[in-house]
Amino acid sequence: MATMKVGTVASLLGGDIVGDAQRDLTDVAALHEAGITHLSYAASDKQVRTLNQTKAGAVLLPKSLVAQAPKDLTAALIAVDDAQAAFVEIMLRFRPQAARPQIGISPQAIVSLTAQIGPDCNVHPGAVIGDGVILGSGCDVHPGAVIGDGCRIGDDVVIHPNAVLYHHVQVGNRVIIHATAVIGADGFGYRFTEGRFIHLPHTGTVVLEDDVEIGAGTTVDRAMIGSTVIGAGTKIDNQVMIAHNCRIGKHNAFAAQVGFAGSGSTGDYVRCGGQVGVADHAHIGTGTSVGAMAGVSGSIPDGERYHGIPARPEKEAIKVHMAMGKVPEMRVQLRELEATVKKLQAEIDALRGSASSDKKVA
Amino acid sequence: MATMKVGTVASLLGGDIVGDAQRDLTDVAALHEAGITHLSYAASDKQVRTLNQTKAGAVLLPKSLVAQAPKDLTAALIAVDDAQAAFVEIMLRFRPQAARPQIGISPQAIVSLTAQIGPDCNVHPGAVIGDGVILGSGCDVHPGAVIGDGCRIGDDVVIHPNAVLYHHVQVGNRVIIHATAVIGADGFGYRFTEGRFIHLPHTGTVVLEDDVEIGAGTTVDRAMIGSTVIGAGTKIDNQVMIAHNCRIGKHNAFAAQVGFAGSGSTGDYVRCGGQVGVADHAHIGTGTSVGAMAGVSGSIPDGERYHGIPARPEKEAIKVHMAMGKVPEMRVQLRELEATVKKLQAEIDALRGSASSDKKVA
Amino acid sequence: MATMKVGTVASLLGGDIVGDAQRDLTDVAALHEAGITHLSYAASDKQVRTLNQTKAGAVLLPKSLVAQAPKDLTAALIAVDDAQAAFVEIMLRFRPQAARPQIGISPQAIVSLTAQIGPDCNVHPGAVIGDGVILGSGCDVHPGAVIGDGCRIGDDVVIHPNAVLYHHVQVGNRVIIHATAVIGADGFGYRFTEGRFIHLPHTGTVVLEDDVEIGAGTTVDRAMIGSTVIGAGTKIDNQVMIAHNCRIGKHNAFAAQVGFAGSGSTGDYVRCGGQVGVADHAHIGTGTSVGAMAGVSGSIPDGERYHGIPARPEKEAIKVHMAMGKVPEMRVQLRELEATVKKLQAEIDALRGSASSDKKVA
Repeated sequence: MATMKVGTVASLLGGDIVGDAQRDLTDVAALHEAGITHLSYAASDKQVRTLNQTKAGAVLLPKSLVAQAPKDLTAALIAVDDAQAAFVEIMLRFRPQAARPQIGISPQAIVSLTAQIGPDCNVHPGAVIGDGVILGSGCDVHPGAVIGDGCRIGDDVVIHPNAVLYHHVQVGNRVIIHATAVIGADGFGYRFTEGRFIHLPHTGTVVLEDDVEIGAGTTVDRAMIGSTVIGAGTKIDNQVMIAHNCRIGKHNAFAAQVGFAGSGSTGDYVRCGGQVGVADHAHIGTGTSVGAMAGVSGSIPDGERYHGIPARPEKEAIKVHMAMGKVPEMRVQLRELEATVKKLQAEIDALRGSASSDKKVA
Repeated sequence: MATMKVGTVASLLGGDIVGDAQRDLTDVAALHEAGITHLSYAASDKQVRTLNQTKAGAVLLPKSLVAQAPKDLTAALIAVDDAQAAFVEIMLRFRPQAARPQIGISPQAIVSLTAQIGPDCNVHPGAVIGDGVILGSGCDVHPGAVIGDGCRIGDDVVIHPNAVLYHHVQVGNRVIIHATAVIGADGFGYRFTEGRFIHLPHTGTVVLEDDVEIGAGTTVDRAMIGSTVIGAGTKIDNQVMIAHNCRIGKHNAFAAQVGFAGSGSTGDYVRCGGQVGVADHAHIGTGTSVGAMAGVSGSIPDGERYHGIPARPEKEAIKVHMAMGKVPEMRVQLRELEATVKKLQAEIDALRGSASSDKKVA
Repeated sequence: MATMKVGTVASLLGGDIVGDAQRDLTDVAALHEAGITHLSYAASDKQVRTLNQTKAGAVLLPKSLVAQAPKDLTAALIAVDDAQAAFVEIMLRFRPQAARPQIGISPQAIVSLTAQIGPDCNVHPGAVIGDGVILGSGCDVHPGAVIGDGCRIGDDVVIHPNAVLYHHVQVGNRVIIHATAVIGADGFGYRFTEGRFIHLPHTGTVVLEDDVEIGAGTTVDRAMIGSTVIGAGTKIDNQVMIAHNCRIGKHNAFAAQVGFAGSGSTGDYVRCGGQVGVADHAHIGTGTSVGAMAGVSGSIPDGERYHGIPARPEKEAIKVHMAMGKVPEMRVQLRELEATVKKLQAEIDALRGSASSDKKVA
């Protein structure tokens, strides 16, 4: 590993140093794992205020937060505009990424004679490319990946090992498909007739627009007639299910194990936490966030935050959650109140008796 | 693409035309995506009543619903007995499916010398077939699919790319196993002894009966002693987990991301929505539907509809769901009621005071 | 299949017989599936007390429970110290496991010239081993498994078909990775800047310690800087998601479809039921169990049992669950109580009127 002085890092980044500029750094590390030769970074107020707890030799932090750092730190501070971006830049100097190999089309790959492979592609051993596939330039198709007949793939696409594209799937530029993801399997649509399910032919397809990322083990089913679409820039984590005919907007981010039922849709900039479920035909509006494990049973407007099963606006959901924890106590209160009211009734009855007897007396 | 006149479509289907029989159609499309040269279909009352919103050139609909269609439609109507079935028939004329290739056993497949492959099978490049496997006639084993030693596979079975069958799995006729599904991995069974988990050998197997469909990424674990069984005609969507020793009945339909724990079972015609979880040893009775995201913690009778976590009969579940949303309001009501009751108590005490002073006076 | 007499089984196990020692046994079976020539086992009180329902020829049971068995059983009883362990021992005699094949490195495998393969390894046809991989002794790499560049794998490791290890993953001894599992894909970490997500390079890795088992379709993502760690002896079922930077302790057991968000952690001996979700940065303490479908939103102490969404201590969760079912009834009670209180108020007002009129009168 290379060594860099704190001062060198700071000048590469145009950052301001508080502390020892001469200290040698050999690698990056997270704040809680770093030692004296490590560069780390603090991005939040809380991380900056607790910098006396790290053993890092140097810490990148935003200029706007420098004043909040404790005094007398072990770590040298390097103040920059964007600590995370700066950290990534230095991380890649300490840990240069392996250069993209130039293997071309491996003789151990299985490539149809009718496939068109663009320039500068790597097709690794054991990869399979079907009839009539068109692959752009600069793509990597890793071992065991299978690209079905008639798929059209853009430029600079990476398809990781054992991922599967069924036939005629359309993939934009700079798309990343992680290992064992499956794009374009038939949607789960059947006719139920004479006591059995008859599979509906799915003659539609899947379109992954530019800059989409599909996580490992994620499945995106093909539409019956038209297209299941994942919009440009949308990032999907592992083990997510996108059913047939969904239309996912641009720049969405779905965490792991999310499931969309058939014909679901989203606007742009939608975020879903892990294990969210979305009912068929539901729509999530642009800019809306759905919290982890929520169940979206109908459509949700733009710009909201929804939580819970069934999903509700955040404030309401928090109230319901808080209240749910109080229900056992409420049952006790209700029972006590019933007893009190019964007692009051008896007291009133007694009073009425005495009042009427008073009256009689009177 | 072929062109067909509305009249031709109608006569192929034996349907009745309302509108222009001479219009040319070039393809099928969903109602909301269709243009003037597209054939679409409407199956529900609601779709028929809103047919003035589609731009389709022609729409198939059930004869029984023709009277409900708006007047003065752009679309020509073709009334048939079963609109969906008719639509599929015409869709496959506009979009003829690729003929099943006749590649036989690819020299780039890896097939054990002791495997028996029936007539008319396609074993694609990169597929792996183990020792002693018996494969019926007319099967397709796609690239990267791995069939373990001793598996017995029926006729007309399709095993999609990168699916894995562990050893000695039994598969009936006309079964479809989608990409990356895993059938027959060891069940998650351990002995916990001396502070560690010891794996229990799973010497049982998995049986997929006739006409079963297994979705992409779905896993069906093998039994420890006997068999994990998926009954005939049952359709399982993507990313479903069926644990060891489950016995799933016939003609079930499970949506994506459902999970059955060990030794679960179902009757026939059971349906589970997405992300349903079923506890170990639970049984779901014949004809019962379980709503999406429900948690089935015990056994459920036949012919019911269950929802929620924990799953309850639908009516009860709806009541609980509605009521849950009211709990924050109930807390307020309860607090107000407590205050009112306190006030009443004070008033009664005051009355009692005055009553007794009255008495004294009296 | 071999035949063994009840007496032979008992003497192999050092067990005590109640019943016919001469009966011939030909196989093992579960209690409810067994016939007269089958050996079964009963491990729980309930199973022992209902032994009159099995048709098994012989049943293993713990010595401590013999007194609870019904009289006049069909089955011969064989009392041993540990019925399950004894059963497994005999099961493997009736059903000897296939000997591990000795195929060495298949010429149809794709193995980098710079990979080091230890003695006694099987690298099956279609497996792919990348540059600089170090594989210990006695490993099995099954068809279609892909081991990325720079991975270091210990001894006696089994990697099932179509599993994928990305580059530089570290795997201990005796680890089992089931089919289509993916270890070391990039974590789901992005910078959101100028309206789009920019992928954060993940230069960390995944460490699977000794005796870890990873289920089919499970994904364990690599850390951004340090390591995602699965502790020694931990068993993970199918379709589980472990996100980047998680640190899972030793001897944990996670059932299927569990999801850990980024930077989650656990102590040792933690158990999670199926479909549990754990929020980012949450910690589950040593010895704690989390029930199926629970949602862990924050950290949980050692030695607890948690359930529900959000996860609460078991007793509290049960109370909340019970109470939730009562909420519809509580709403009715509350409404009735409000009516009663209103009536009381009226009665008090009436009394007060009469009292004051009394007073006036007085």
